[in-house]
Amino acid sequence: MAKYIIGVDVGGTNIKLGLVGPSGRILAKTNLSTKGYNHSRAKLIDGLVHAIQKLAQENKIARKDILGVGIGLPGLVDFQRGVVIFMPNIRGWQNVPLKTILQKRLHVPVFIDNDVNLITLGEWKFGAGKEYKNLICMTLGTGVGGGLVLNNALYRGEGSAAGEIGHIPLNEKGPVCNCGGLGCFERYVGNHYLLARAVKIFRNKNIRLEDIFHLARQGNSSAIRFWQETAAHIGNALVGIINLLNPRLVIIGGGVSSNYRFMKETIHKVIRQRAMKVQKNMVRIVRARLWDEAGIIGAYVLVRESIVRR
Amino acid sequence: MAKYIIGVDVGGTNIKLGLVGPSGRILAKTNLSTKGYNHSRAKLIDGLVHAIQKLAQENKIARKDILGVGIGLPGLVDFQRGVVIFMPNIRGWQNVPLKTILQKRLHVPVFIDNDVNLITLGEWKFGAGKEYKNLICMTLGTGVGGGLVLNNALYRGEGSAAGEIGHIPLNEKGPVCNCGGLGCFERYVGNHYLLARAVKIFRNKNIRLEDIFHLARQGNSSAIRFWQETAAHIGNALVGIINLLNPRLVIIGGGVSSNYRFMKETIHKVIRQRAMKVQKNMVRIVRARLWDEAGIIGAYVLVRESIVRR
Repeated sequence: MAKYIIGVDVGGTNIKLGLVGPSGRILAKTNLSTKGYNHSRAKLIDGLVHAIQKLAQENKIARKDILGVGIGLPGLVDFQRGVVIFMPNIRGWQNVPLKTILQKRLHVPVFIDNDVNLITLGEWKFGAGKEYKNLICMTLGTGVGGGLVLNNALYRGEGSAAGEIGHIPLNEKGPVCNCGGLGCFERYVGNHYLLARAVKIFRNKNIRLEDIFHLARQGNSSAIRFWQETAAHIGNALVGIINLLNPRLVIIGGGVSSNYRFMKETIHKVIRQRAMKVQKNMVRIVRARLWDEAGIIGAYVLVRESIVRR
Repeated sequence: MAKYIIGVDVGGTNIKLGLVGPSGRILAKTNLSTKGYNHSRAKLIDGLVHAIQKLAQENKIARKDILGVGIGLPGLVDFQRGVVIFMPNIRGWQNVPLKTILQKRLHVPVFIDNDVNLITLGEWKFGAGKEYKNLICMTLGTGVGGGLVLNNALYRGEGSAAGEIGHIPLNEKGPVCNCGGLGCFERYVGNHYLLARAVKIFRNKNIRLEDIFHLARQGNSSAIRFWQETAAHIGNALVGIINLLNPRLVIIGGGVSSNYRFMKETIHKVIRQRAMKVQKNMVRIVRARLWDEAGIIGAYVLVRESIVRR
């Protein structure tokens, strides 16, 4: 039986590829800059084909030894049909049957899914969520994404769009969000909004989130408060999710979660004060474990589970 | 094979029983007042046993013709183990192995679950939700409950506590809720809170929700606005749920939903304005169809599915 899987994580900045061995270990990795490929659909497809082929060749893996390729993409992906419905930040992608296109060119099975779904699969099977049946995975970055494992299966929703934790409203009369909603969770904790708040608080146009992290480490009270306020929003969003879905675990990942130690206490406090008794007593809140490899590991899980199930 | 199922819906006011035929039709019904039974655990158990036996006898159904008994209870119920973990409004119920107790006395299979879960099962298989794989059922009453059908199965959560739609916060600094949370959805649209708002608006201590319904029908602008404001809260709660779970259908039931025609337009408008494009374009919002029989029909579904699956 073919032993190797190639996992691909297409992000807004980088395209990460990994060759994954039979037990789920990443044997080799490579990176492309997304910039060079997001001008046209054909260019990105060509780029993916070449990078996948190159990764296999460089590691002396023959086509027959590749079980499949799994790809996570930043957008709405219909996993069942293998179609990219759209990607908000990469041009020219609407209803692209990427699975079929790539299978014709690579001659190996290809599976595609939303990037956060793959991160969730990775954390569930190989990261912080091992052995759990009901968990929520939240990624804090420019966007705030989410993946849901419910009844021991990834829940994708009716139209592959489930998991939009970032667009749960926190306030009925909150500020307008990009999505058209009001008071969305992402509108409070997405990177751009955090930065905009930081620029005001610290009166510094060039401040970066890393700087506020650094300031908090040095004991700067404004910086500590900045992360506590951020954490309170995270806690409030989680209260609704925990009450509604009664998960056993919440995994927090993404760039902002590297500041988790300044947010942990407040997140826990808000949940302790506001969530329902049964739900809050059984939920654990933890940080993601796989970091930037979660997507590649998740692609491995996707391919394995898809092929075993056929 | 045994053909009949007895469905029981234990509510705060009434205990409803129904004898259900093989095709899911209710052949006979009976009612008890909960009041007479909620003083002690033993009394309620005795009451259930006698009422179930009497319903069978009166309809000349022998024990061997009863496939099973399904019971919905207003509280936290562990369906798998058959244990009532607690019921907030009926005294003396904590960790009661009701399934085992009743099976010993009735000598037929017994299945127990949360009442809103059974309403959801009923609506899903025989009501407004037929053929749907991903739906949300919301019950608007004194409490605001919810049931979730995800990936074509009822989702109960890690500790049987999922579905608490009423305790999704709508505002981070909203009013304190009974559950300890702030700004919970139920805190805006639960019957007691609606009434308290109505007393102020209409300056009438004895006003009932039916009166405001009546006034709205007569064109009273305060009453119409009252229901529109209520509907806006319902819409806002649904925006979060729809964005997160991407359901195909939302079923609205419970007492307050009889005023649905004064709320429909606003609920739809809020969702149209605020929910995410993919999610809102595929979701349908409808009223419940089975009304006060949903619990009994749901009990029928529970028994059928539990026995077939064993």
